[in-house]
Amino acid sequence: MNSEELKNILAELQRGERQVDEVVEFLDHLPFRDVGVAHLDTHRGLRSIMGEVVFALGKEVKDLEIILEGLLEHEKNILVTRLEAHKAKLLKEKFPQFDYHESGQYLVKLSHNNYDQGRGTVLIVTAGTSDLRVAHEAEITLRMMGHKSEMLVDVGVAGIHRLLAYRERLMAAEVLIVVAGMEGALPSVVAGLVERPVIAVPTSVGYGAAFGGVAALLGMLNSCAGGVGVVNIDNGFGAAYLAGLINRKAEG
Amino acid sequence: MNSEELKNILAELQRGERQVDEVVEFLDHLPFRDVGVAHLDTHRGLRSIMGEVVFALGKEVKDLEIILEGLLEHEKNILVTRLEAHKAKLLKEKFPQFDYHESGQYLVKLSHNNYDQGRGTVLIVTAGTSDLRVAHEAEITLRMMGHKSEMLVDVGVAGIHRLLAYRERLMAAEVLIVVAGMEGALPSVVAGLVERPVIAVPTSVGYGAAFGGVAALLGMLNSCAGGVGVVNIDNGFGAAYLAGLINRKAEG
Amino acid sequence: MNSEELKNILAELQRGERQVDEVVEFLDHLPFRDVGVAHLDTHRGLRSIMGEVVFALGKEVKDLEIILEGLLEHEKNILVTRLEAHKAKLLKEKFPQFDYHESGQYLVKLSHNNYDQGRGTVLIVTAGTSDLRVAHEAEITLRMMGHKSEMLVDVGVAGIHRLLAYRERLMAAEVLIVVAGMEGALPSVVAGLVERPVIAVPTSVGYGAAFGGVAALLGMLNSCAGGVGVVNIDNGFGAAYLAGLINRKAEG
Amino acid sequence: MNSEELKNILAELQRGERQVDEVVEFLDHLPFRDVGVAHLDTHRGLRSIMGEVVFALGKEVKDLEIILEGLLEHEKNILVTRLEAHKAKLLKEKFPQFDYHESGQYLVKLSHNNYDQGRGTVLIVTAGTSDLRVAHEAEITLRMMGHKSEMLVDVGVAGIHRLLAYRERLMAAEVLIVVAGMEGALPSVVAGLVERPVIAVPTSVGYGAAFGGVAALLGMLNSCAGGVGVVNIDNGFGAAYLAGLINRKAEG
Amino acid sequence: MNSEELKNILAELQRGERQVDEVVEFLDHLPFRDVGVAHLDTHRGLRSIMGEVVFALGKEVKDLEIILEGLLEHEKNILVTRLEAHKAKLLKEKFPQFDYHESGQYLVKLSHNNYDQGRGTVLIVTAGTSDLRVAHEAEITLRMMGHKSEMLVDVGVAGIHRLLAYRERLMAAEVLIVVAGMEGALPSVVAGLVERPVIAVPTSVGYGAAFGGVAALLGMLNSCAGGVGVVNIDNGFGAAYLAGLINRKAEG
Amino acid sequence: MNSEELKNILAELQRGERQVDEVVEFLDHLPFRDVGVAHLDTHRGLRSIMGEVVFALGKEVKDLEIILEGLLEHEKNILVTRLEAHKAKLLKEKFPQFDYHESGQYLVKLSHNNYDQGRGTVLIVTAGTSDLRVAHEAEITLRMMGHKSEMLVDVGVAGIHRLLAYRERLMAAEVLIVVAGMEGALPSVVAGLVERPVIAVPTSVGYGAAFGGVAALLGMLNSCAGGVGVVNIDNGFGAAYLAGLINRKAEG
Amino acid sequence: MNSEELKNILAELQRGERQVDEVVEFLDHLPFRDVGVAHLDTHRGLRSIMGEVVFALGKEVKDLEIILEGLLEHEKNILVTRLEAHKAKLLKEKFPQFDYHESGQYLVKLSHNNYDQGRGTVLIVTAGTSDLRVAHEAEITLRMMGHKSEMLVDVGVAGIHRLLAYRERLMAAEVLIVVAGMEGALPSVVAGLVERPVIAVPTSVGYGAAFGGVAALLGMLNSCAGGVGVVNIDNGFGAAYLAGLINRKAEG
Amino acid sequence: MNSEELKNILAELQRGERQVDEVVEFLDHLPFRDVGVAHLDTHRGLRSIMGEVVFALGKEVKDLEIILEGLLEHEKNILVTRLEAHKAKLLKEKFPQFDYHESGQYLVKLSHNNYDQGRGTVLIVTAGTSDLRVAHEAEITLRMMGHKSEMLVDVGVAGIHRLLAYRERLMAAEVLIVVAGMEGALPSVVAGLVERPVIAVPTSVGYGAAFGGVAALLGMLNSCAGGVGVVNIDNGFGAAYLAGLINRKAEG
Repeated sequence: MNSEELKNILAELQRGERQVDEVVEFLDHLPFRDVGVAHLDTHRGLRSIMGEVVFALGKEVKDLEIILEGLLEHEKNILVTRLEAHKAKLLKEKFPQFDYHESGQYLVKLSHNNYDQGRGTVLIVTAGTSDLRVAHEAEITLRMMGHKSEMLVDVGVAGIHRLLAYRERLMAAEVLIVVAGMEGALPSVVAGLVERPVIAVPTSVGYGAAFGGVAALLGMLNSCAGGVGVVNIDNGFGAAYLAGLINRKAEG
Repeated sequence: MNSEELKNILAELQRGERQVDEVVEFLDHLPFRDVGVAHLDTHRGLRSIMGEVVFALGKEVKDLEIILEGLLEHEKNILVTRLEAHKAKLLKEKFPQFDYHESGQYLVKLSHNNYDQGRGTVLIVTAGTSDLRVAHEAEITLRMMGHKSEMLVDVGVAGIHRLLAYRERLMAAEVLIVVAGMEGALPSVVAGLVERPVIAVPTSVGYGAAFGGVAALLGMLNSCAGGVGVVNIDNGFGAAYLAGLINRKAEG
Repeated sequence: MNSEELKNILAELQRGERQVDEVVEFLDHLPFRDVGVAHLDTHRGLRSIMGEVVFALGKEVKDLEIILEGLLEHEKNILVTRLEAHKAKLLKEKFPQFDYHESGQYLVKLSHNNYDQGRGTVLIVTAGTSDLRVAHEAEITLRMMGHKSEMLVDVGVAGIHRLLAYRERLMAAEVLIVVAGMEGALPSVVAGLVERPVIAVPTSVGYGAAFGGVAALLGMLNSCAGGVGVVNIDNGFGAAYLAGLINRKAEG
Repeated sequence: MNSEELKNILAELQRGERQVDEVVEFLDHLPFRDVGVAHLDTHRGLRSIMGEVVFALGKEVKDLEIILEGLLEHEKNILVTRLEAHKAKLLKEKFPQFDYHESGQYLVKLSHNNYDQGRGTVLIVTAGTSDLRVAHEAEITLRMMGHKSEMLVDVGVAGIHRLLAYRERLMAAEVLIVVAGMEGALPSVVAGLVERPVIAVPTSVGYGAAFGGVAALLGMLNSCAGGVGVVNIDNGFGAAYLAGLINRKAEG
Repeated sequence: MNSEELKNILAELQRGERQVDEVVEFLDHLPFRDVGVAHLDTHRGLRSIMGEVVFALGKEVKDLEIILEGLLEHEKNILVTRLEAHKAKLLKEKFPQFDYHESGQYLVKLSHNNYDQGRGTVLIVTAGTSDLRVAHEAEITLRMMGHKSEMLVDVGVAGIHRLLAYRERLMAAEVLIVVAGMEGALPSVVAGLVERPVIAVPTSVGYGAAFGGVAALLGMLNSCAGGVGVVNIDNGFGAAYLAGLINRKAEG
Repeated sequence: MNSEELKNILAELQRGERQVDEVVEFLDHLPFRDVGVAHLDTHRGLRSIMGEVVFALGKEVKDLEIILEGLLEHEKNILVTRLEAHKAKLLKEKFPQFDYHESGQYLVKLSHNNYDQGRGTVLIVTAGTSDLRVAHEAEITLRMMGHKSEMLVDVGVAGIHRLLAYRERLMAAEVLIVVAGMEGALPSVVAGLVERPVIAVPTSVGYGAAFGGVAALLGMLNSCAGGVGVVNIDNGFGAAYLAGLINRKAEG
Repeated sequence: MNSEELKNILAELQRGERQVDEVVEFLDHLPFRDVGVAHLDTHRGLRSIMGEVVFALGKEVKDLEIILEGLLEHEKNILVTRLEAHKAKLLKEKFPQFDYHESGQYLVKLSHNNYDQGRGTVLIVTAGTSDLRVAHEAEITLRMMGHKSEMLVDVGVAGIHRLLAYRERLMAAEVLIVVAGMEGALPSVVAGLVERPVIAVPTSVGYGAAFGGVAALLGMLNSCAGGVGVVNIDNGFGAAYLAGLINRKAEG
Repeated sequence: MNSEELKNILAELQRGERQVDEVVEFLDHLPFRDVGVAHLDTHRGLRSIMGEVVFALGKEVKDLEIILEGLLEHEKNILVTRLEAHKAKLLKEKFPQFDYHESGQYLVKLSHNNYDQGRGTVLIVTAGTSDLRVAHEAEITLRMMGHKSEMLVDVGVAGIHRLLAYRERLMAAEVLIVVAGMEGALPSVVAGLVERPVIAVPTSVGYGAAFGGVAALLGMLNSCAGGVGVVNIDNGFGAAYLAGLINRKAEG
């Protein structure tokens, strides 16, 4: 509900077309509905471009079916993240209009793409090939949000010259998502090379004292370079969503 | 050094105005100097506005004196962070041109301020009054970088309506820094209200199972709201530096 | 044994109908049996309404069969919690009078229900839909204890207005059970809105730095709002049992 | 603002005494003020009895002075918790009307006491004498809230018969606060003896693998007895506040 | 080799029946062989009663077959601990003379039993029925060592009177092994009741913040009662071995 | 109260010298008083030899004065453990009959010593000289209990031959207390050399990843040698108390 | 590219045989290519002996097939580590020229072996038989690098004389790799016996408080003996690679 | 004792100059003394060059005085590590021949230096200036052992070109000690640049989620580059000792 509608109702009261009690009743629930609507409106600014995202981890196939049916009624773009292959196979039988990405573990239906939401390019950098699945989740999320992204894979710090060879691409990006497991040192090095925001994503790649991504997470939080923001372990979606907010064009 | 300069040197060699050995000597250090210079140049873009920042934690007063003397020769703006009061007192005797901020624990000399670096306002939000010292560190950092910031203090989630009363200010910010200790829930709530990047700073405020900020840190990393990037515990400087990079105007 | 019986025995001794040694022998084991009986009596006050609860985690089907057979002899209400579906299937073949709840993972036989044990309503609030399995365990436990409960699902802090829209229902509850995974911030917000006891249940919902519910647990223990008591991760039964004790009518 | 006031404003609009724009302007900020007021009203129900509580940990004396001056204008009861002795000494010079409790580390001014807020007695039980400081914080908090409390000290599980000797007092309490450090086993034993809510408070009493209260905290969260809610380590205030909410008489 | 043999060799040298180089060669490896033998002799004192114990966790069936074949040549008593049922089934086909205990997860061949090694009875006490598998491992180990043991099951601290009813049996034991998961409080209570050594075994029974036995382990290490020694989580064998050493009769 | 007294009371009832109500009243509190007395009696068996032990950590001097005054009335032997030097100095002024041991941090008054409580010698072995303070606490505790102890200092595993040189002393002990910080490997090696119970005490000696004794604690709990029981970090008293119980002569 | 080549190019420019733009173009990529090449050259020194190593953990069979096909074109020696048996079976069907080692979990093709890369022998020592799989990974890695290695198995610290019997072999080694799980004490003892570098490898062997190798890792990091370097849990490859670097002959 | 001496004694027995019992007595203690001597001899090979090192952490001044007096009788080189300034001041008064290094926190007396023990140069690299104190401890240790060392300070990964500018010095070193706090990423990058052993030393430099060096430690253990061995947090001595062993010349 916008101000115009509210004015109309009050004008109706003024003109005697509504009773005080009726308007009190209406206003009684207004604050939250109003706030809610305003809140949703705001979000809708972003969501009307992006569509809806479903986090599938721990949800059963039958629940996902109900959710997808509901969303298909009004959403053009739908992304299901963290979806195991065996669940995806069952869903694809019912929803053939979706595509499944095995490495990125997502199911997606992209009906419209509007690649002019970003001020620049988001560069997704990974330390190793095993970090790719997280990078793919970030990539599709950015695509949903209407941002251009590029990927630079397997440029971990053990072979620092591989990374330096791409210095120009690194410096040309508007925002960088840096994905790394094990010791998680790559974001520090990248943030030292560029003057743009770096979103660091620790991954659960590694073994032993990697503790499922904790070593990488701590490494990133303690980065000696400025300009690094960290998200949860393996959270490619969260990193991309933040990168998208950062890269968004000013609203005209 | 730019391509033009390199071309000139090589042209001088071609014209016989330089010797091969002289150019070899020059090029021998070029890659790193060149890279270094380019790197520094880039940084200098930011640093010429910002000045220099010294992290004082664990440094002795005599070391800080040497560093400040060195910096005073060529820097207009100098910020010393994490400086305990007793050290500050000693430094102020020697460097009276600096101001000390007791709560923010910083010593600063700001000779020029250029408040037109940002696209919008950075809003610093704190859950409690004890989080202020971290907020003050963020505030001065943003000021060094030439960004406007505002502060919204003591709007923690236990009294959610205090926060909601400021909904408009929250939604008007270009970037938000949200500072909270204890359970660290404020960034989730704020990120649910706005569509802008939220930089979350866990603080060591709390006791017992707060574990010096770990509870807040974990809360922020696991935020159920999108668009939250986390920095290290009590790292007000890091949050502001990232916010500054995000808020920076496009280079003309 | 009550005081009356004891008096009778001593009177018999006084009247010469019993010998000193016989009474000494009797009294020798009295304290513990007596205490035990008193203790059981007390519990029986609650248990005669509630029936018996079996915790199935780690118990084999054959053991559960023996336990259920034993209980069926004298209990009207029997609840088996934390029972996986494949075990439930085997038990249902032998005990068709039980019902299995797949999401709540419990097997139950409720022969009598007495919904007048509570002073008011216990409201079960969940942050997300994935927290439902824990909420269902709490719900059936309250039903066993004879308390009315209601459920409010998926009102997590990332969309704070969803929660605020239910402010009246929140404030009308006598006790609140708040179930949340990830950052576990919901109990803090709820406890800030109501003036009733809040039982917080962290869930293992989440990934990465959620550490199987530890992040939520720490968030709840460090709640900046007063009036929050915490139970173990995923412990829906424990939360409901405590809520039931709090909500119990004074004994007439 | 209550419904009556809202009705009056709308009636004024209806009668032409106010303009639509004026009412829109008014309503625009209503939701939050309204919600805020309602929220404060609710709290005021409890706070008008209790007065105000200030958490002093990490606050400087000068800040505490400002806060106390402000509170003294309108509060009859004021409690300052977690206040070290040296700070208390300085505050007492300025505020001689306050009393300081060294063991409980609180400063208090109790101008009126209304001991009829509770349905029954809150019993505070401690495992050892070192847990007393936490018990004292709980005791004064309950007194602020208008509840009767009793204390049972040094009845830890290593000498189980000391505890059992007080079985009747344990069973007579309406709510129990059980305070224990080291292995934190006392709440389990107490909860097994009574049929009332047990609020467990782990304390940082212990050394080595007690890890500052973590061992006791884990022990309490894993209690094999039902009816135990846990608060943060050393959080005597939180335990008492929850106990007070549980013990509160129904509002007539 | 004993002193007598050594004397003989030296006497042979003295008598010219051996050469210096031959004796040097012999002595060159003597220290370690000698020490080794002495060491083994000592152990053999215990091992000649006990036989051999094989820890099967992580060993493959084919390796276990080779080990058992080797041991069967000279050992009368053989115990294989931590053996899963499917492995046991394969081994039983080849070694029908062994018995498998499913709950205790051990395979055993006991050819001779000598129940007069102990000074008294070792009492194994468990908090719950789920702790039985660890208790069974302790039981068979004691039987191997020639000690009498008794078992007291499901006397956890939540129902303290169950435990107290067995006060006499507790006090009659020479050594007590107390097995408990969850909060691990039972050893503290038992050690407060008896004046004998208590070996505490934490078990991985529990969920959530039990952290696979860590809560119980910490509880036991922080026992407020004296006389408690702790072994690793689920280490029934280790507890029994220590109990056996404590209970061993003085060597005549 | 013993059986004889109980018989007398009942006989008085039988003879009409007491009334039923009077005996009921008496018996009503009997169980716990009785149990309590029996419990104390049992303990008194040990305590009449040992005297009383006060744990001073966290207790203030004024509290310790009250406790010591109370104990001096009826105890011959009194031990105060974990007492810092500055507190000891104040106590010694008031209680000159006590001796203070600076390294062991205990204050002691030993009026009678009865060194015939043990079956053999308790050997206290330390890995380094820094572990001595814990060893001294163990030593005085054993002396209180009437056991002979010997000490073997600085025989850590880095120089294994130092330890082996004392093989005979190790093997001659009835019980061994092995004290070690850092990696805590000494108990494993010692337990491999002897066939007696080994009580392992981790100490907080070390730095960095020693984590205040956690590394040593984990090392001891995971000992690959049988016969090792572990106590809390730095708990010399607990180790000695357990060793004393193990070494105690059978009661005639 | 060496200095000589650079001089030639510049000389060609000087002689007019090259154009400025051509040289600029060349130099533009020089730094990184140059650095890269130099770096790769260096590595190639080692890699031309060793061949290529593929870490298979988390890689799918189809990816491994692509990688192996690529490597077979130019590598004589190829090692695939951390390869589960079922994956190995599939790969062997396509690549019959490889051998699979079940315990060491590696697939290998060794076409040439050059055992003269080391200054001495690398001795691999294991505490138990369960540590063998890690030892086998170290063994094949050393073989790839052209170093002689020997193995000493099951000489853990619980039977210290087994280890001492091999004192001469220990002292004869140039570098030692010591592999141990549980308490991880073996490296300390070995490093105390030799004067050579000891590479310690914690293994995940153990249960309960072994925490998947953490106890062993902490034990090794806190070694009281000098000369111990630690690698990640179960990292046999890393230990051998480091040992190989240490043992490498000086380059002629 | 060497073989020659043993032969002489046996020859004396053969010649009747010694009795069997006398030789038995002698041999009885031989193994350990012999082993001990051999062991000490071996060490003496290194120690005769190095002198003695005293770890002062936790030792009192009076104990250090006794130790130093003892050592001064026969050692030319003495190093006291981890010595706080106030203790050093007291010791210097008594032992003026020692020098104290404030940053490195060591006291040293170097009477002879023999810089020809190493095959090459040990390069000590630090990430920041705060890591210098650890580097200084490593430097003096290497000097004690007779190795040449160089230092490269403040070349952390945030400014990667600073490090690359020293590529040649890095590649020229025989062994590298890399010291870093915070995220501890420097060893990975250095190990990727060189083909020599890298000893990584995590430091406690950092705050918040650095957890006193744990983040750096985990980063180093999970290094994605080969050839990295890790020592305990802040253990400059241990790193240098290991580097010295690696760099030692073959014994002629």
